[in-house]
Amino acid sequence: MPHRPHILIMHSPLGLLTPVLEGAYNVHRLWEHPPVEAQGLIEAAVVLGEAPLDTAVIERLPNLKLIACFTSGYDGIDLGWCAARALPVTHAPAVNHEDVADHALGLILGSVRQIVNGDRTLRAGGWTMDERLITPSMKGRRVGIVGLGLIGEAVAKRVEVMGCPVAWWGPRAKDSPWPRAGSLLELARDSDVLVVACRADETNRGLISAGVIEALGPNGLLVNVARGSLVDEDALIDALKAGRLGQAALDVFETEPTPAARWADVPNLLLTPHTGGATSEAVQGMLVLLMRNLAAAVAGEPLVTPVVRS
Amino acid sequence: MPHRPHILIMHSPLGLLTPVLEGAYNVHRLWEHPPVEAQGLIEAAVVLGEAPLDTAVIERLPNLKLIACFTSGYDGIDLGWCAARALPVTHAPAVNHEDVADHALGLILGSVRQIVNGDRTLRAGGWTMDERLITPSMKGRRVGIVGLGLIGEAVAKRVEVMGCPVAWWGPRAKDSPWPRAGSLLELARDSDVLVVACRADETNRGLISAGVIEALGPNGLLVNVARGSLVDEDALIDALKAGRLGQAALDVFETEPTPAARWADVPNLLLTPHTGGATSEAVQGMLVLLMRNLAAAVAGEPLVTPVVRS
Repeated sequence: MPHRPHILIMHSPLGLLTPVLEGAYNVHRLWEHPPVEAQGLIEAAVVLGEAPLDTAVIERLPNLKLIACFTSGYDGIDLGWCAARALPVTHAPAVNHEDVADHALGLILGSVRQIVNGDRTLRAGGWTMDERLITPSMKGRRVGIVGLGLIGEAVAKRVEVMGCPVAWWGPRAKDSPWPRAGSLLELARDSDVLVVACRADETNRGLISAGVIEALGPNGLLVNVARGSLVDEDALIDALKAGRLGQAALDVFETEPTPAARWADVPNLLLTPHTGGATSEAVQGMLVLLMRNLAAAVAGEPLVTPVVRS
Repeated sequence: MPHRPHILIMHSPLGLLTPVLEGAYNVHRLWEHPPVEAQGLIEAAVVLGEAPLDTAVIERLPNLKLIACFTSGYDGIDLGWCAARALPVTHAPAVNHEDVADHALGLILGSVRQIVNGDRTLRAGGWTMDERLITPSMKGRRVGIVGLGLIGEAVAKRVEVMGCPVAWWGPRAKDSPWPRAGSLLELARDSDVLVVACRADETNRGLISAGVIEALGPNGLLVNVARGSLVDEDALIDALKAGRLGQAALDVFETEPTPAARWADVPNLLLTPHTGGATSEAVQGMLVLLMRNLAAAVAGEPLVTPVVRS
């Protein structure tokens, strides 16, 4: 029987990886029972990068060689804390940015062209011969992108085909075919659709503030496919209720799963349960990178996709 | 007071044009009272091109010089019947094909990426930490287009950016960057998504037959943004209920408005109330063409956008 290193899955949504991981590892699952006897054996922790990391558990694992995020994002992890303990972190970059961009496009079309509303109205018997739903055209709608990374660029390419002028804003200038706005507030003011597509960390919590939301205004659409922490959710709800923002489409939330009751009486809203990057193809790609990083860590070889601190 | 020619609006959904048309015309509205006294004065009939034309009314208008479709489509009109009476027909071509293509894209993303379902599930409290909705990726999904006209080409350009291979079928070969399938059945068999985007007339009623639907199959998505008459709706409903077709997304129906009850227990279905081309920008463009065609007809000048019989 080959050596089967011990690993610990930290977050229950990753429980579905167990059968695959058991092909090569002794798998412990934190939510079933803390690995008290095995804690000296565990060599890697498999985590959901956007979920908070329980550092008290990590500290009880003396042989830990890797924190492996299944996901592309790793905003639940304090990289400084890990660095101080010489704990490397890996993730799955560039696996699902096109899927997230497709989802953003679906949220934009679902909102601007009233596809979700249309379905609801028709099913409720609200389609009559004399009431025709007229929506704005996509053509000419100005799309502003917050954060021109892989996701932001993929969104830009998709909306350009529909005749939408694109601009963007991010804290650092970069070469791109699209103009960078002078500030986030300026971008919001000059956009019909604002797509949040940047990385989230403690420095940009609440980036989409009440001021940004109101600059986007009563005809504007806010789309968030990045992280819930980037948007001041209470301010967003207030603005939608008061008509100071036109529409919002959210795939990510301050807390996930977000409680349905929080959104029950908020108008002009399209909500999806953080499915932007959750395609079967992306899950497959993430799994491949996870397995390669785990194998490298237990073999003491160079990691395949380590998180690089910026 | 200038001469104000008499015109007749035939269909009540066009009633909203009355204020604009009254700027230049004496406007009669068929659904309010048949124009008995004025029938000798009426010079043009304004119609919804996709709705059946009441030829008995038309025959009682001896001074009629034009049947003006507000819409791009004119499938409610028997062009042979009009030609036999030397009645010209105009329409609004190339005004909203990009809007219809955008809508098709929204229907595809709403279905494949489960955006409409996601919204419904989240609002019903069905998003829990341990149930993650995984959808297919758009990338690599093969899109087959039925009818490579302006709408079909605009759809092709949009899905290509998402990494979808495109093929098409139409009765006539034509130059295009995308391969033409040997037959409609072959296109359906080799597609994951089949988008119906062709013109409808009596020759292609029920074109999307039970056989085509089953060739598309249990993982396939049928999208119709053209005309309801093109799809065998009963066969479609049967196939969805039996799982012989994966999903359908319909903007057009055999009868419109379609009764909500017809679709109540049909699964895997996204429905919109014929809003594909109904944008404010397109309505504006149609109105401009309508006014120019009406002015030309009453002045005896060449029509701007006459329907050309193919």
